[in-house]
Amino acid sequence: MCRWIAYRGETTALEHYVTEPAHSLVAQSIHALESTASINGDGFGLGWYGLHPEPGLYREIRPAWSDENLRYLCRHLQSHLFFAHVRAATGTAITRVNCHPFASGKWLFMHNGYLGNWSRWRRQVEGLITDELYPSRNGTTDSEAIFLAMMGAGIDRPVAAAEKILATLTNFVNRNEPADRFRFTAALANGRDLYAFRYAVNDHANTLYYRESERGIVIVSEPFDRDKDWVTVPENHVVIACAGERARMLPLFHRHQEAAE
Amino acid sequence: MCRWIAYRGETTALEHYVTEPAHSLVAQSIHALESTASINGDGFGLGWYGLHPEPGLYREIRPAWSDENLRYLCRHLQSHLFFAHVRAATGTAITRVNCHPFASGKWLFMHNGYLGNWSRWRRQVEGLITDELYPSRNGTTDSEAIFLAMMGAGIDRPVAAAEKILATLTNFVNRNEPADRFRFTAALANGRDLYAFRYAVNDHANTLYYRESERGIVIVSEPFDRDKDWVTVPENHVVIACAGERARMLPLFHRHQEAAE
Amino acid sequence: MCRWIAYRGETTALEHYVTEPAHSLVAQSIHALESTASINGDGFGLGWYGLHPEPGLYREIRPAWSDENLRYLCRHLQSHLFFAHVRAATGTAITRVNCHPFASGKWLFMHNGYLGNWSRWRRQVEGLITDELYPSRNGTTDSEAIFLAMMGAGIDRPVAAAEKILATLTNFVNRNEPADRFRFTAALANGRDLYAFRYAVNDHANTLYYRESERGIVIVSEPFDRDKDWVTVPENHVVIACAGERARMLPLFHRHQEAAE
Amino acid sequence: MCRWIAYRGETTALEHYVTEPAHSLVAQSIHALESTASINGDGFGLGWYGLHPEPGLYREIRPAWSDENLRYLCRHLQSHLFFAHVRAATGTAITRVNCHPFASGKWLFMHNGYLGNWSRWRRQVEGLITDELYPSRNGTTDSEAIFLAMMGAGIDRPVAAAEKILATLTNFVNRNEPADRFRFTAALANGRDLYAFRYAVNDHANTLYYRESERGIVIVSEPFDRDKDWVTVPENHVVIACAGERARMLPLFHRHQEAAE
Repeated sequence: MCRWIAYRGETTALEHYVTEPAHSLVAQSIHALESTASINGDGFGLGWYGLHPEPGLYREIRPAWSDENLRYLCRHLQSHLFFAHVRAATGTAITRVNCHPFASGKWLFMHNGYLGNWSRWRRQVEGLITDELYPSRNGTTDSEAIFLAMMGAGIDRPVAAAEKILATLTNFVNRNEPADRFRFTAALANGRDLYAFRYAVNDHANTLYYRESERGIVIVSEPFDRDKDWVTVPENHVVIACAGERARMLPLFHRHQEAAE
Repeated sequence: MCRWIAYRGETTALEHYVTEPAHSLVAQSIHALESTASINGDGFGLGWYGLHPEPGLYREIRPAWSDENLRYLCRHLQSHLFFAHVRAATGTAITRVNCHPFASGKWLFMHNGYLGNWSRWRRQVEGLITDELYPSRNGTTDSEAIFLAMMGAGIDRPVAAAEKILATLTNFVNRNEPADRFRFTAALANGRDLYAFRYAVNDHANTLYYRESERGIVIVSEPFDRDKDWVTVPENHVVIACAGERARMLPLFHRHQEAAE
Repeated sequence: MCRWIAYRGETTALEHYVTEPAHSLVAQSIHALESTASINGDGFGLGWYGLHPEPGLYREIRPAWSDENLRYLCRHLQSHLFFAHVRAATGTAITRVNCHPFASGKWLFMHNGYLGNWSRWRRQVEGLITDELYPSRNGTTDSEAIFLAMMGAGIDRPVAAAEKILATLTNFVNRNEPADRFRFTAALANGRDLYAFRYAVNDHANTLYYRESERGIVIVSEPFDRDKDWVTVPENHVVIACAGERARMLPLFHRHQEAAE
Repeated sequence: MCRWIAYRGETTALEHYVTEPAHSLVAQSIHALESTASINGDGFGLGWYGLHPEPGLYREIRPAWSDENLRYLCRHLQSHLFFAHVRAATGTAITRVNCHPFASGKWLFMHNGYLGNWSRWRRQVEGLITDELYPSRNGTTDSEAIFLAMMGAGIDRPVAAAEKILATLTNFVNRNEPADRFRFTAALANGRDLYAFRYAVNDHANTLYYRESERGIVIVSEPFDRDKDWVTVPENHVVIACAGERARMLPLFHRHQEAAE
């Protein structure tokens, strides 16, 4: 049960969102409130876009709360679109390649949730990854495998690609008797547009909130302050925050939203 | 506010004390009960005696709960006298050299507590370290400095050496206006004998317990099971567990105990 | 091109083989002689057998030459059968799970070599791993995949299992046009018996030597001293060093040797 | 014998100097040419100035050649003044706090060289650090201690401050019989101006070069390409590269240069 934050808007220093707020992501690494795991000390990561078309990554296996490099980077890195993630591992190794976010080409992805009985389903999910992308399978998490599967499922239409893979995974977990749980609260971006998903099958979905202003949008697994403007994203919905537009919230697996892209 | 465990007795695998109990030290690293810091995720360490006269050390900066090496070592290392420590840092860097236990020659030391206003007192405490031992000052913690000061204060009579340094440190902290706090709950060993101290000035002392049987003695900052045989060590006392003898508990700064050695 | 050492014999401290010799494995980590990579600074590992039926592991991503924990462990760990390995990565991530040795049940394995065009063959090689063992696929190296494939190919007859997988891999690399290179210089043990392989197809095999005395056998990728008793293992041979017997050296893929087991 | 590079000029991505050149600093980490230590694998660091008045730092204990975070940061960080350093340790621990560069307020410092018999002189050199700055003494290297001593010796006139401390250290090492060696090839910056020193006593000084163009100046311990424009800095000289001016090269301990500031 990890915690994460995604931002798209005016270019800003990461510290205003990642390290400075009272209940910042770094504070959540040592004491999260809306998570079954209150400690997210199994590594962390930053992903951000700058002048280069491909995003930058900084991932580390030590806890976010004690990493002095992270504080320097959050102060000095400025970005119009960035991700930050603190990890609570659910069975896979504590390695940098298992830390979020994951990058592939211009795309960035991070995830909070899990696919139940991962050891059982892993091979099938990895089988969804195209041969071309399989060399990018650097770790062993469900999250990275799902992302790479989505990459090969027509990522240029990201909501449709996500729905296609989520439908396949839903079929997988429902094949078991009793059915396995699957929770997927994730963010996806391409340097311009930001997408956030809240989905679950056979389980409650992990929390997801966002707050939008003229300066930009921030999407989080739990609010980092007591402001009342946080919007709760309902289960099985996607938030679409395209560059230059107000964010839209749409139900997943719904025709209109596919047309809307 | 760290957590630690010390054992002296029949040779045993470390896992029986460090990783296996319900509320083991590794469990305490992610959820301690009797500590102001419930998370002790800022590194950890093992120190143990074997055939070699000098102890072995294994210290790491990642949290104990996620270190697979630690689990293998606790299963395979056997010892008649060992220390294990999980750290919650109070201002100094997360480096291996700042992790407990500390070793010097045949001696091993670990500590839970702190010396208030450490930045102010550090130079004076380091000044207590002899020139001969100063090259062994590898980190920046109060704990290591106090240990090295004790090493140069007649360590062959360890309780007297500890009392001498504790008295000096008590003078230091009482010089400030208002006086600084000093908490010292520590273990010291030489490969044969084990000493544990519970002391504080201008503050409550951190908890200390022990349990003794025919097989040996285990001394802990908090019990790792609900057994009723744990003995609470009172404030300002020392536990002396010499090889081949029953443990004795004596008040610190008390003539009789000096003679008793 | 990694460097490694394997020992089976009288119980001894690891330091006599790993850290103390003039051209010890740790010295080879910073300056190997018979390797295309003179620096083996991409992590290292120890594997050893003790009282427990399953081996212990200590793996780290920093260079062996600067790891103080390694020196303490080599001094304090005693074993009748142990492996040590320093890594020069050839494309896969520097993570503990990609460091050798690898363990599965009572078996231990380490490797020096590579399978050319690994990105192309990876999926096929992973396909050789049984479903039961696939959850043990923690990293992304060719070495770990080959080991797990061997584990599922009748590991109770280890030379036959190795030959079966080596034959399959040889078929794989020969399918490419031009054929890919495959070098496999590896050690395998089960707590009693030690096997070492030197094999290559479409390439020269990496060097392999051993030295045997009444006290035991040590097998290495390059000698750690100038002693003249080192025996060069020819290409496409296996060294079989069973408990209580003199070592035998046999050609791989040879009927007599299968019967000899 | 570390390797380093310092840049001041037009804002540029760090990668053009740190990772891309044929014989880049990262290449030098695994194979330096003009150093007694050809391998600089004991950690590394970046320091850079951006919008914030205080510099950013990224320091790691693993070798530069295998750190994927470093590659991302060098691609994405842009700066008008930055330092990069790869370390070959000479006796002190491999910890982040012992990695260069060091920062104090707006100042940045890195060093290649050593002060002979450091264990003997350490206490005296640390005694040169003011009480106010002593809490910033996070590691145990000679380099950090010398920097903090300079910080307290009137750093607003940096060449004079450096000369004052170099003179004191020269007195120290000359007191020994035979005299100890001292090599100091270092860079210092405040966000606007860049200073580089090449000095030694009782020894040859480590190499130092620079290259200047209209776009800026780059100062290095060894050239990263075969360009013929590299200027060799003579022993006991300082390079002064102030913002908006051509670099000047002056002898150390020379009246005119003090007046020139």
